[in-house]
Amino acid sequence: MSNNHVQRVLEGSDLAIARLITWLEDEDERALSIMEEIYARTGRAYVIGITGAPGGGKSTLTDKLTRALRRRGQTVGIVAVDPSSPFTGGALLGDRVRMSEHNTDPGVYIRSMATRGFLGGMARATGDVVKVLDASGKDVIIIETVGVGQDEIDVIGIADTTCLILVPGLGDAIQSMKAGVMEIADIYVVNKADHPGADQLCVEVSVRVEQDLHIKPTGWSPCVVRTVAVEDQGVDLLVEAIDRHRRYLEESGQYLEKRRERTRQETLRMVHNELFRIVRQRLQDSGRLDRLVQEILDHKRDPYSTMREIVNKWLSFPQNQKEAL
Amino acid sequence: MSNNHVQRVLEGSDLAIARLITWLEDEDERALSIMEEIYARTGRAYVIGITGAPGGGKSTLTDKLTRALRRRGQTVGIVAVDPSSPFTGGALLGDRVRMSEHNTDPGVYIRSMATRGFLGGMARATGDVVKVLDASGKDVIIIETVGVGQDEIDVIGIADTTCLILVPGLGDAIQSMKAGVMEIADIYVVNKADHPGADQLCVEVSVRVEQDLHIKPTGWSPCVVRTVAVEDQGVDLLVEAIDRHRRYLEESGQYLEKRRERTRQETLRMVHNELFRIVRQRLQDSGRLDRLVQEILDHKRDPYSTMREIVNKWLSFPQNQKEAL
Repeated sequence: MSNNHVQRVLEGSDLAIARLITWLEDEDERALSIMEEIYARTGRAYVIGITGAPGGGKSTLTDKLTRALRRRGQTVGIVAVDPSSPFTGGALLGDRVRMSEHNTDPGVYIRSMATRGFLGGMARATGDVVKVLDASGKDVIIIETVGVGQDEIDVIGIADTTCLILVPGLGDAIQSMKAGVMEIADIYVVNKADHPGADQLCVEVSVRVEQDLHIKPTGWSPCVVRTVAVEDQGVDLLVEAIDRHRRYLEESGQYLEKRRERTRQETLRMVHNELFRIVRQRLQDSGRLDRLVQEILDHKRDPYSTMREIVNKWLSFPQNQKEAL
Repeated sequence: MSNNHVQRVLEGSDLAIARLITWLEDEDERALSIMEEIYARTGRAYVIGITGAPGGGKSTLTDKLTRALRRRGQTVGIVAVDPSSPFTGGALLGDRVRMSEHNTDPGVYIRSMATRGFLGGMARATGDVVKVLDASGKDVIIIETVGVGQDEIDVIGIADTTCLILVPGLGDAIQSMKAGVMEIADIYVVNKADHPGADQLCVEVSVRVEQDLHIKPTGWSPCVVRTVAVEDQGVDLLVEAIDRHRRYLEESGQYLEKRRERTRQETLRMVHNELFRIVRQRLQDSGRLDRLVQEILDHKRDPYSTMREIVNKWLSFPQNQKEAL
């Protein structure tokens, strides 16, 4: 039955994909063995990240971008990451409903994901879903996320090309670009470009890009694309810019370099999450955690030496290099 | 020298505190042994969380709250958590400069923390700093953070009393309160209460609180406090509300219950982080990680079974319960 499921995921069955993703979310044992099987079929899809502050029109742009990609025959997977924030939550469902025109299109698969679990791990979860859609044969995968916390920045790190959406009049956009956004944006999209202040914003972004290139020269010069997503204006220019960035990555060898770094982070993250899952389970199931917590509260022990003791007792490194992987 | 350092931290030396926190951030070995020593002296400080969307005036409110607490003779530690977001970064430094009046006050210690490392861990880092300030004799510790991602919600989980700052006119505040904010807010602060829309916002928040209490009754009914932080208005009411919530927690037994849960999460986080730190270091230093990544990229292995192998081989659980803690 598991082989059957693997086969159906590879054939792109929406039902099989949906079930596998649910198993991944539930940490169901079945998910892991399927992921091991389908992994060899991943690595084909191109991954686009769409990020920006709330209210910038990310969902509409994702919608129009999807249409444009479909027009040239590419299949599309969309992963919408909701950071479950009290300050941004709630809007997502409405946005997804707007995209329902794609629901009847077998060439589009949409999945919303909410942050769960107290240790984040959104980047790992998103990486898993991207791999599932990749293996299922989607040509392009779009990750849409609000770029707010470290967790969301990690999520965007999965993308080959990252588009940062800015809109005129939404606070001090350029001011807020100081803190590291240059490192994640390959393409700036000035959306709602028919609103007052759009020209000004484009100029400011361009100046900023120039300055940063001057300070830290790189091979790729981030470009600025103007769109009015609700009117479907400028979306073709965005597609062109993404294509250009893709060619740049491939020709410069950075495509492989990025994927190597992503695999590196992914592998570490997986080990990290699995360690936590096991630690939590062992400590909780045995009732040891309750006892330790009581002793710490009674100041009979401190959490630091407790941690040291547990780690020393639980970790063992095989001496033999071969044996140790 | 280490004993000397422990002593100086306990005596509240700013220099000794600053150095210890830097060691914690750098994962310096010296930090751990000092933390073990000072742990017995923690648990006295009351921890207040201040959270809310950017632009709500959190820093100003923290500033005025600090003044009010100082007036009644309490010493204050402030931990300002910057989520290093491209959309919110940059403002923090300016805010901290505004608070410089406290710099000459030995009864106030301010520490800004930036998100570091690819796996978040802000909650653990913040918890450590809170313990340092607690042991150093601060009566009240204020954690100030932008409540955006899961990581920041975890940070706020450390607080005994959490204040959520709302301001009129900053988007659809009530709409955004759907997604779980009721679970973190003990006190709602409507700041900039002299702005248009403040009355409306207070009413909406109160209605919302009523509705939620109806659905999920709890012993504490979150209150709404109006402030104009820049004018130092309403801050005494906020102090009163915090005192009331503290008495409620203590009298209902929830104070101890919260601390138990916090210790529980902390212990899990520490064990997990330390395990991962060691595993990551071993993988990187030995060059094994590079080799594994290459084999995964060549599709000679998949990351899922690789993770399983590493965890199975490196973790060993003592059979004897006593021996296993």
